[in-house]
Amino acid sequence: MSQVVTFGEIMMRLSAQSHLRLIQASQFDVTYAGAEANVAVSLANFGIDVAFVTKLPKNDLGLAVLRILRQYGVDTSYICFGEGRLGLYFLETGFSQRPSKVIYDRANSVFALSNPDDFDWDKILENAKWFHFTGITPALSDNLVESCRNALKKSKEKGIMTSCDLNYRAKLWSEEKARQVMSELVEYVDVLFANEEDAEKVFGIKADDSNIIEGKLSLKGYEQVCTRLQEKFGFKKVAISLRESIVANVNRWSGVLMDGKDFYSSKQYTVHIVDRVGAGDSFAAGLIFGFLNNMKPQESLEFAVAASCLKHTIAGDFNQVSIDEVKKLAKGEGSGRVVR
Amino acid sequence: MSQVVTFGEIMMRLSAQSHLRLIQASQFDVTYAGAEANVAVSLANFGIDVAFVTKLPKNDLGLAVLRILRQYGVDTSYICFGEGRLGLYFLETGFSQRPSKVIYDRANSVFALSNPDDFDWDKILENAKWFHFTGITPALSDNLVESCRNALKKSKEKGIMTSCDLNYRAKLWSEEKARQVMSELVEYVDVLFANEEDAEKVFGIKADDSNIIEGKLSLKGYEQVCTRLQEKFGFKKVAISLRESIVANVNRWSGVLMDGKDFYSSKQYTVHIVDRVGAGDSFAAGLIFGFLNNMKPQESLEFAVAASCLKHTIAGDFNQVSIDEVKKLAKGEGSGRVVR
Amino acid sequence: MSQVVTFGEIMMRLSAQSHLRLIQASQFDVTYAGAEANVAVSLANFGIDVAFVTKLPKNDLGLAVLRILRQYGVDTSYICFGEGRLGLYFLETGFSQRPSKVIYDRANSVFALSNPDDFDWDKILENAKWFHFTGITPALSDNLVESCRNALKKSKEKGIMTSCDLNYRAKLWSEEKARQVMSELVEYVDVLFANEEDAEKVFGIKADDSNIIEGKLSLKGYEQVCTRLQEKFGFKKVAISLRESIVANVNRWSGVLMDGKDFYSSKQYTVHIVDRVGAGDSFAAGLIFGFLNNMKPQESLEFAVAASCLKHTIAGDFNQVSIDEVKKLAKGEGSGRVVR
Amino acid sequence: MSQVVTFGEIMMRLSAQSHLRLIQASQFDVTYAGAEANVAVSLANFGIDVAFVTKLPKNDLGLAVLRILRQYGVDTSYICFGEGRLGLYFLETGFSQRPSKVIYDRANSVFALSNPDDFDWDKILENAKWFHFTGITPALSDNLVESCRNALKKSKEKGIMTSCDLNYRAKLWSEEKARQVMSELVEYVDVLFANEEDAEKVFGIKADDSNIIEGKLSLKGYEQVCTRLQEKFGFKKVAISLRESIVANVNRWSGVLMDGKDFYSSKQYTVHIVDRVGAGDSFAAGLIFGFLNNMKPQESLEFAVAASCLKHTIAGDFNQVSIDEVKKLAKGEGSGRVVR
Amino acid sequence: MSQVVTFGEIMMRLSAQSHLRLIQASQFDVTYAGAEANVAVSLANFGIDVAFVTKLPKNDLGLAVLRILRQYGVDTSYICFGEGRLGLYFLETGFSQRPSKVIYDRANSVFALSNPDDFDWDKILENAKWFHFTGITPALSDNLVESCRNALKKSKEKGIMTSCDLNYRAKLWSEEKARQVMSELVEYVDVLFANEEDAEKVFGIKADDSNIIEGKLSLKGYEQVCTRLQEKFGFKKVAISLRESIVANVNRWSGVLMDGKDFYSSKQYTVHIVDRVGAGDSFAAGLIFGFLNNMKPQESLEFAVAASCLKHTIAGDFNQVSIDEVKKLAKGEGSGRVVR
Amino acid sequence: MSQVVTFGEIMMRLSAQSHLRLIQASQFDVTYAGAEANVAVSLANFGIDVAFVTKLPKNDLGLAVLRILRQYGVDTSYICFGEGRLGLYFLETGFSQRPSKVIYDRANSVFALSNPDDFDWDKILENAKWFHFTGITPALSDNLVESCRNALKKSKEKGIMTSCDLNYRAKLWSEEKARQVMSELVEYVDVLFANEEDAEKVFGIKADDSNIIEGKLSLKGYEQVCTRLQEKFGFKKVAISLRESIVANVNRWSGVLMDGKDFYSSKQYTVHIVDRVGAGDSFAAGLIFGFLNNMKPQESLEFAVAASCLKHTIAGDFNQVSIDEVKKLAKGEGSGRVVR
Repeated sequence: MSQVVTFGEIMMRLSAQSHLRLIQASQFDVTYAGAEANVAVSLANFGIDVAFVTKLPKNDLGLAVLRILRQYGVDTSYICFGEGRLGLYFLETGFSQRPSKVIYDRANSVFALSNPDDFDWDKILENAKWFHFTGITPALSDNLVESCRNALKKSKEKGIMTSCDLNYRAKLWSEEKARQVMSELVEYVDVLFANEEDAEKVFGIKADDSNIIEGKLSLKGYEQVCTRLQEKFGFKKVAISLRESIVANVNRWSGVLMDGKDFYSSKQYTVHIVDRVGAGDSFAAGLIFGFLNNMKPQESLEFAVAASCLKHTIAGDFNQVSIDEVKKLAKGEGSGRVVR
Repeated sequence: MSQVVTFGEIMMRLSAQSHLRLIQASQFDVTYAGAEANVAVSLANFGIDVAFVTKLPKNDLGLAVLRILRQYGVDTSYICFGEGRLGLYFLETGFSQRPSKVIYDRANSVFALSNPDDFDWDKILENAKWFHFTGITPALSDNLVESCRNALKKSKEKGIMTSCDLNYRAKLWSEEKARQVMSELVEYVDVLFANEEDAEKVFGIKADDSNIIEGKLSLKGYEQVCTRLQEKFGFKKVAISLRESIVANVNRWSGVLMDGKDFYSSKQYTVHIVDRVGAGDSFAAGLIFGFLNNMKPQESLEFAVAASCLKHTIAGDFNQVSIDEVKKLAKGEGSGRVVR
Repeated sequence: MSQVVTFGEIMMRLSAQSHLRLIQASQFDVTYAGAEANVAVSLANFGIDVAFVTKLPKNDLGLAVLRILRQYGVDTSYICFGEGRLGLYFLETGFSQRPSKVIYDRANSVFALSNPDDFDWDKILENAKWFHFTGITPALSDNLVESCRNALKKSKEKGIMTSCDLNYRAKLWSEEKARQVMSELVEYVDVLFANEEDAEKVFGIKADDSNIIEGKLSLKGYEQVCTRLQEKFGFKKVAISLRESIVANVNRWSGVLMDGKDFYSSKQYTVHIVDRVGAGDSFAAGLIFGFLNNMKPQESLEFAVAASCLKHTIAGDFNQVSIDEVKKLAKGEGSGRVVR
Repeated sequence: MSQVVTFGEIMMRLSAQSHLRLIQASQFDVTYAGAEANVAVSLANFGIDVAFVTKLPKNDLGLAVLRILRQYGVDTSYICFGEGRLGLYFLETGFSQRPSKVIYDRANSVFALSNPDDFDWDKILENAKWFHFTGITPALSDNLVESCRNALKKSKEKGIMTSCDLNYRAKLWSEEKARQVMSELVEYVDVLFANEEDAEKVFGIKADDSNIIEGKLSLKGYEQVCTRLQEKFGFKKVAISLRESIVANVNRWSGVLMDGKDFYSSKQYTVHIVDRVGAGDSFAAGLIFGFLNNMKPQESLEFAVAASCLKHTIAGDFNQVSIDEVKKLAKGEGSGRVVR
Repeated sequence: MSQVVTFGEIMMRLSAQSHLRLIQASQFDVTYAGAEANVAVSLANFGIDVAFVTKLPKNDLGLAVLRILRQYGVDTSYICFGEGRLGLYFLETGFSQRPSKVIYDRANSVFALSNPDDFDWDKILENAKWFHFTGITPALSDNLVESCRNALKKSKEKGIMTSCDLNYRAKLWSEEKARQVMSELVEYVDVLFANEEDAEKVFGIKADDSNIIEGKLSLKGYEQVCTRLQEKFGFKKVAISLRESIVANVNRWSGVLMDGKDFYSSKQYTVHIVDRVGAGDSFAAGLIFGFLNNMKPQESLEFAVAASCLKHTIAGDFNQVSIDEVKKLAKGEGSGRVVR
Repeated sequence: MSQVVTFGEIMMRLSAQSHLRLIQASQFDVTYAGAEANVAVSLANFGIDVAFVTKLPKNDLGLAVLRILRQYGVDTSYICFGEGRLGLYFLETGFSQRPSKVIYDRANSVFALSNPDDFDWDKILENAKWFHFTGITPALSDNLVESCRNALKKSKEKGIMTSCDLNYRAKLWSEEKARQVMSELVEYVDVLFANEEDAEKVFGIKADDSNIIEGKLSLKGYEQVCTRLQEKFGFKKVAISLRESIVANVNRWSGVLMDGKDFYSSKQYTVHIVDRVGAGDSFAAGLIFGFLNNMKPQESLEFAVAASCLKHTIAGDFNQVSIDEVKKLAKGEGSGRVVR
């Protein structure tokens, strides 16, 4: 009965503290994270009635995940449980010229091994208005490709809006496999989200005049990317987050949106980073929030970029900010003066 | 028998660690802080004989405060004790576009509920040379307005220099109430301290060409503010700290001073911030130190700005720096090379 | 039987956490560090077969050092043990205008009190290709001057390359004493390393157009320093690391190399700093690695500067980076994008 | 629409770590706790559909409480919000002969200042089967006496079972005031819970042959206490938890139950203590769970005593144990062998 | 070329701190552990030249394991590396009536998926005197049954002593599978180690008069167990550790040994527990040490029981005690007086 | 002008956390401690006006010590400063059969190297009533023997009571040297304190029927020890603390007192231990407090034993308890029930 439904894996995230390398760590911070769960939590924090759908192990770790999600008010009633393991990932937070580093240990998770039957989409999507997933979910197993297809088809039957964040992960599948699967799935997708390199990796659509490694991105180039994606797949909307990395702890952050007719670009923030993981998810969540609330395109985009700008200052994958905080920043109060 | 006496509230400060939001914290760092106590500790660290006057609860938390103050050598012999609670505040340290956030829980503290009779100013101010308070103290209760008035009158009787830091706090009183009370109290004040927005909030005196939210301040504008304050209230000296906030963790910091005849402005520092709370107090303390030691105006100002620049790099409200460190910085050694 | 042998003191390093001042700390992080040990660990991490030679106390602290070194695969079989104390140092990490601060407590350590007989150089240097020490070792005691001389003479007998990092420490000896001792010892040295101020302190050779305190260094000036050092002492190679300090936590970092014929200068990095102690040692280790692998001069220099640039982002004195990471940075991937 | 409803205050609990005294602490662990919230969480962990009713401040601390409760699945939909403060308490955990110490700072909390109108009992208790509160709630203010009376009267109207835990707190009210108020309120109460000293403090009913300070309690004496309570107030059931304190970190723990006809006493556990705060609440929750599930009296009692025995090993006020764990202990597996 | 070779899996161990439950933890302590690695480290700490053989993932986690083992001086030169994951386990440390809890996540580890070809036993066992493994290794995969068989056969060829610790793990295989596989493998085993319940689980040989759950073990019963094991499988020696659990944090600990002719039982210690995981491994290591040093049977047994008694007081799976400390305890100095 | 003066060394204490061994620690807790400083802090906490006399290094570590002492209200005005090092010690806290372990690194401290001229006893002891030192001070250097002699002679001149705690430390001097020096110094001592083994080590006076290693002490035996000490040296009072060690974390603790005429023995406590270092000092402080307040002998002894019993539950060397807490325990409230 939730307004928005997101579908994907949630993992335990084990991160070294105080900029230590993984190999130096004798303690890990424990949080829980996953692209679609991150979107769900962002939306829940904005007051949206949202359900997160996944499969969890029937043990204390699965219960820990459940508690974490429930504390944000995310609807967990469609989560199923089974014997198996919780996927996890190790995070080393970079600094200056040293990049952050992620080691995934998610193979054979109870979610990756789930069956399409585990998810009763007819019931889950009852009364929903929006269905969201990312390219990570189908990358996990063929069964999950089918589960995604089931959810998308059912959404189309019910007239539910669908969105997908490309979220290409080279560790999970090849560019070829991604292209083949995603080309099929996006047929059912209304709104596409991507970051500055996804479109090239998945669909071979590259932005001109841009050098991602050197952190120089061209708006013109990304307008073309949006246009080509729209032309090729018929999306109603395409939004791309643009990260220019100066050093690991200081980035420039902005976004673009094409809504079929027009192209919009946001203001750009120079962000000092506490934790950048999950920023893309908070960008997608910001846009979904804007769309659900019928904000104008530019306003939606600025909301999403401001929300995800703030995400960079929050520890953990989840974006823990309020609508007020986002709007204040979008309006221009970005100098970080104390709120007493 | 102390040279300087400061009067105000000291609170327990509970702050989230490692840039976590308050809502994420499962541990708080515990320190103790308050505008006038911060000034007292700064002065004690500079070797000044200083007493801090307040009222504390008669329990372990009051004893904890006493110990903390004593360790800096602050004279605590005029502090009185009673049944009641210690005020406290919660601090979330901002980063980048996310501002720091303070939640006060100081209402009904044993100090706010203190009686004018609790403080025997004749005895406290015996042999003192300087009395200091801030706009926070009278904002806490009408009784404290009276206690401030008593202290100020007694100071004038004894020929003691008096200083006040406007320190406007919107959570404690309205601009109207502040204006009314402070207009009366500053009649007894020789030296006025303020930050870049206090004069406007309390006395409606605004700097031209300045935009505090965008972090752009005009020296000309603040010269006018000094002049008008001096003209209106007859202060011997007016000093204003000027903060230009770029992001929450990087600010520009400087100060101005008018001594009746001339206007002085300091060099400006770009500070990377560990903890900015208490910076204004360390600015005031630096000036009081300079004045007590008969430094020249420009020298006093540079000392105060350098001292408070360093405060931004110290965790906790208290400024823990030595005269040598401040002077080295004021002389230009600000590149932070290792001292072996 | 190791390829490289380094000789010096290793200390316990006690550092305050989270940018606290030493005087605020109620906990210290415990690591182990020393210039020559840092070089040994850097080389071991690059896969070089390296032995570290020292004398340790026969107690749990000596055993702790042994374990630490062994975990990197450093050959510890020539370390001798005796009654006595482990040297130690206290570290306060600076920020912004507040410099880092080191308090040494290394006098009378078991190593400083060691005898020349404690080290059987004939055996230690058997089959070695490279011997490295720094100016700290002879500064510790006259016995250690003799031990260094013994090692250097034996190296020359065996045709082993020798290197020395000047590493001048004012707390250990005067500039006069340093000049007298080092002038003699460098007669046996093939490769000299120094930082931007060592040559002046030890040999009175100063770079023109440079102001170390203001963080402005001239390449021309340092070319002259290299030339004069080479002319005076006949070094095969001279390399100097160049630090321009903006604030304590942001520096510019580069290096120069003269190989008898030509002068090379590296690209310059603006580094945001986690921990800069040991950066010079990682620069020396990078060059030794390049020389041992017959890299070209420019390539060796860029490798060394990239390696030591990364060191600034690693907590502790030891540089914990891989050859791959260094090469990637030297090639230009320095924007710190996430490695998934 | 919850089965069980509990009503009371929930506070922030600030506790010193690692057996430090409050006065030594530079960090506090932050949890949230309150007698009736503790009961709600215990029941939720046992799978009971339970709502907790309170009033919270409209700020980040109130939101933090909301999140904490939601993570256990407690229904928070009847919680109201308003301007004001969150009550809090400081906890020092005792050891050996040193007792634990609690400093309350709960006066003038937004809950204590709540109005009877804040709680719409007709709606809250719709479909409920059980209403629970403790003597702490009416001790907080006269308004809360009225709110309790309203809830109890409405419960009786609707045929809902009611329970009360005496929970006498000398810091909140005198024995006289407690006796007067509680004598009236318990008229509406079906099930009474108490600890070994409550009945004497509140109703002057003392157990013979028992010395609470020396930790020697007589079953006979407590049978009489139950009988007298039942005779005087007509309770359907009376249950008393019995703590014999050997040292602060080792206690003996058991309980008794009278159900109108018969008197039952449980097995006694010698518990080594991690955190004993909240044990009484977990005892009450265990009995409510037993009663709701129609366990036999002895079985209910053993379940409650085993559950609360385990509570002593859990950090924080909340009892975080499963039905299985409790049943295993109640059956006799109390030697703490590893579960692999 | 090591004297002793042990073969098995080493995992990352993630443990909740300060007696928190796993579900409460927001940080984990990270150590590395595994039955045969624990034995290797124990022996290395006693000065034995020991190699640990396993397969590790080719990533930072594998490198972390390598470093950890190297710091104890364990020979890691026969460890092979490959693509895959490191097994891990989560540990919740019990207290009082609450048992410790282990969640394994070791399926599909790079070691479990290793091939018999990964281990060149001819080379590994060259010059070895003792080969040790536990029942966990063959439980991980059929390939590992074969690897164990290969190692054992090669040991017998070379006249190397072999030992096995039954270490039954119900989560890894059924009692039936264990019996079948272990019955075959122990044919090659000279020395058998077990705990108080292994013999029953694996071979159905139960001690009379003993109740493991209630913590009451009969020496007579375990003498029979030793005798039957020896008769059935022809072991040269059988040793069993005996744990009587009073509560999770206080146990009684002792051991028995049968050497073909005679039966020996040790003194019994009442141990207060910091961390009991790995105690059985330290018992086996103690006996191997005694046997290798030709201690008399009673002396070997007392050494092993004292060593493993001390293990209970050491955090982490590894036993970090010296020969001197063990001997002092075995001689009777067990009251824990300060060593200054 | 203080009532009591104590004289000795104060060191930095670096202790491993959470029962880790020193060799495992990557963090140390930092406190400050020393026998005579511990006595001073105990007395200050009981409201006695007390000065601690020592020599400290002129650096941040010396300043840290100053602050720590000042926070308890100890008079630090006679402390002198000089170039040199602060002594320190490393502490590993034992558990169960594993003893605590201390590694001293105090040689050549600025205090050990102090001159008799550093201390102006005429001024320091002006108006004092009691002078206290321990056997550690003269053990540090011959200069300090002279300083002690000077202080004692001056005390006798002025009619000041003197006390000495034997505090024999085998690491500092031999039993022969101790006997020779202490035999001379105790000629000036009125009150002697010792623990259960000091008298034997220093003066060869042994208690019959007692086995310290097994933790069995005979009251009769210690009565004889007191008598012989009194007869031999003419002390006015002799008090001995008696520790029976069961395991490292559970001891029995009591004390005896002979006042020239009568022999008193205290009740015995079984203490569960947080930190036992400094317990003897708190025992001496308790007796000095009793004597200064003219308590009866039995009352003084019970006060001292209760105070030092509580010390075992306090982290750090300093005893942080109030007179009320001690008296409550001495009266029999030792079951550690919560104080709300």
